[in-house]
Amino acid sequence: MQFEITHCDKTSRARTGQLVTSHGMVATPAFMPCASQAVVKACSPHDVADLGIQLLMANAFHLLLQPGPDIIGAAGGLHQFMGWPRPLATDSGGFQVFSLAQPSDISEDGVSILSPLNGSRIDLTAERSIQIQNQLGADIIMAFDECTRYPCEYDYAAGSVERTLDWAQRSQAAHSNEEQALFGIVQGSVYADLRQRSAEETVSIGFDGYAIGGLSVGESRAEMFAALAACVPVLPENKPRHLMGVGTPLDIIQCVQQGVDLFDCVLPTRNARHGSLLTWEGIVKINNAQYREDFGPLSRSCDCPVCARYSRAYLHHLFRLHEAAGWRLLSLHNLRFYAQFMQRLRQAIAAATVPELEAQLSAWTDRDEEKS
Amino acid sequence: MQFEITHCDKTSRARTGQLVTSHGMVATPAFMPCASQAVVKACSPHDVADLGIQLLMANAFHLLLQPGPDIIGAAGGLHQFMGWPRPLATDSGGFQVFSLAQPSDISEDGVSILSPLNGSRIDLTAERSIQIQNQLGADIIMAFDECTRYPCEYDYAAGSVERTLDWAQRSQAAHSNEEQALFGIVQGSVYADLRQRSAEETVSIGFDGYAIGGLSVGESRAEMFAALAACVPVLPENKPRHLMGVGTPLDIIQCVQQGVDLFDCVLPTRNARHGSLLTWEGIVKINNAQYREDFGPLSRSCDCPVCARYSRAYLHHLFRLHEAAGWRLLSLHNLRFYAQFMQRLRQAIAAATVPELEAQLSAWTDRDEEKS
Repeated sequence: MQFEITHCDKTSRARTGQLVTSHGMVATPAFMPCASQAVVKACSPHDVADLGIQLLMANAFHLLLQPGPDIIGAAGGLHQFMGWPRPLATDSGGFQVFSLAQPSDISEDGVSILSPLNGSRIDLTAERSIQIQNQLGADIIMAFDECTRYPCEYDYAAGSVERTLDWAQRSQAAHSNEEQALFGIVQGSVYADLRQRSAEETVSIGFDGYAIGGLSVGESRAEMFAALAACVPVLPENKPRHLMGVGTPLDIIQCVQQGVDLFDCVLPTRNARHGSLLTWEGIVKINNAQYREDFGPLSRSCDCPVCARYSRAYLHHLFRLHEAAGWRLLSLHNLRFYAQFMQRLRQAIAAATVPELEAQLSAWTDRDEEKS
Repeated sequence: MQFEITHCDKTSRARTGQLVTSHGMVATPAFMPCASQAVVKACSPHDVADLGIQLLMANAFHLLLQPGPDIIGAAGGLHQFMGWPRPLATDSGGFQVFSLAQPSDISEDGVSILSPLNGSRIDLTAERSIQIQNQLGADIIMAFDECTRYPCEYDYAAGSVERTLDWAQRSQAAHSNEEQALFGIVQGSVYADLRQRSAEETVSIGFDGYAIGGLSVGESRAEMFAALAACVPVLPENKPRHLMGVGTPLDIIQCVQQGVDLFDCVLPTRNARHGSLLTWEGIVKINNAQYREDFGPLSRSCDCPVCARYSRAYLHHLFRLHEAAGWRLLSLHNLRFYAQFMQRLRQAIAAATVPELEAQLSAWTDRDEEKS
């Protein structure tokens, strides 16, 4: 994987760039929808490709449970298995395994839990996570890390940073597929000194890119931005930076100004399935009775296939029916909104108009509303 | 609506024809997938149009419950509301309302039940059903009928035939939209004399087409064919004949040889959501563990977008996840199979090779399996 910065903003850390992978190019900043189980929920891979989505993020833990990395390996890798020809990333599974683990399940070696699927024991270590991700064959893979919860006591966070650094080294040693870029992950909860140390030591190990984990887990926006400010400047300029699990368009535009290049989040599809749609005119809660007889499109300024063909009244009807067809159409719209938003954000960086785009979003984005 | 017969088989009652409606032409014999609630479950209308499906069947009772005929009328009719530009039929709602009714809910005037949605009282009469269907604006609409259950005592079936004839006259008197073809419905349970009388009297009222209702409700195949044989020859040659709620490909090919032109059924989509897929090589039960590592398409001889892009292993994975994306892909495949099957059936009638097509289907179709 190659990364080239094409433009740097003069008034913030924002930059545009190009990630070149063996499955194609990604213009950054970029947003990756989650396809944790090798599918963007309610949508088919082909649907998503048609929306201008550049890359997807799958998950080693989910795919370890079902269908298993051996099957995906036998299919020729995850791209082949899911019929997605473009770039892919996988997460290490750390976040999921830690969210299921009790403290006693965690050791210096890794995590040992019972499968939520069938109760069998699952031991996940740095070596095993990388081995799985090598089998999956995504273009970008993640070192195995401990994602701490929020709130997290300082001492635990400090110990966790050391554990994550150890696992980062072991992840790098275990990595055996040169076609895949390996990203190290910065942790440290909301503690600036831990974030800084985590970033410095991860950089000294040396990775193809750097992810920032353990944020967007319940902390305040101020805490999130302080944590970012403590670690992003430590990361090398010439490597891509990925902020995990973020977020709303307003989060993204503000984090891009802190120097972040890549994002992944379930929000566009989860919000869609919950009836919350993003448009340039504001948020549409499609379950609202006001849309029963609204025969206009979700958004008159949207170029997605849903706005071209279906009315708010019809989408309201499908949503009220709890129809899978509705979840898909609403998801496609939100995904297209994100793709279009990221494109406008890249253009705004090049044109030095990011504040104007941010002001436009701030005018209608109620972050809590949007996350609800 | 105009109906023209283009070819008559020499060895059976099978014929090909063309229905011309103001929303386009339908080549018969034709199968209509059910879009009871203005959506083919798990699929979007645009998806279905791309598969070569010529017409859909919606339901006046379901649409009375949600979103209501006033809203669909305000949208400009059902075609507009659901974004389906091709021909549409609606059922009268009789089948649904009778399946919910107690004997005491039924009078000579109609049926009065409590809404399963909100408990409000719903009175459905011939006049009201036609009024709703006029508002919906489908190209083909159905007279209000009583669909008897199976088994049904002779005396009840005889009384029901009279009631249905009365309602047929009232339906015709109430019908106010000349752009919509109104079909009368033949009832009479499994009793040949009742079927014959119902057909004769319905024909003497005079309709644009004739539907045969009250079959495929639990009776044996022999009973179904005997009932058909008692009524189809009574129906005028130059009007289309619709067998309601049928069925499997083998059912369809055999009923076409009895002179039926139109079919509607939930089977292709319901079976798909239950993991049962039709291919020209046989039935694929996608949940079966043998497909975990089967990287070929559902069918090598299928031209559907699913077989072009996704493997059995991936579809198995989505099915095991209970993923809405899987229900859709499997439904699209089965719908395309039906569209292709009906096309081959029309060609076979023209080429006098229906028995060969039937033999091909019989070789792998296990009717009970397929319905399960």
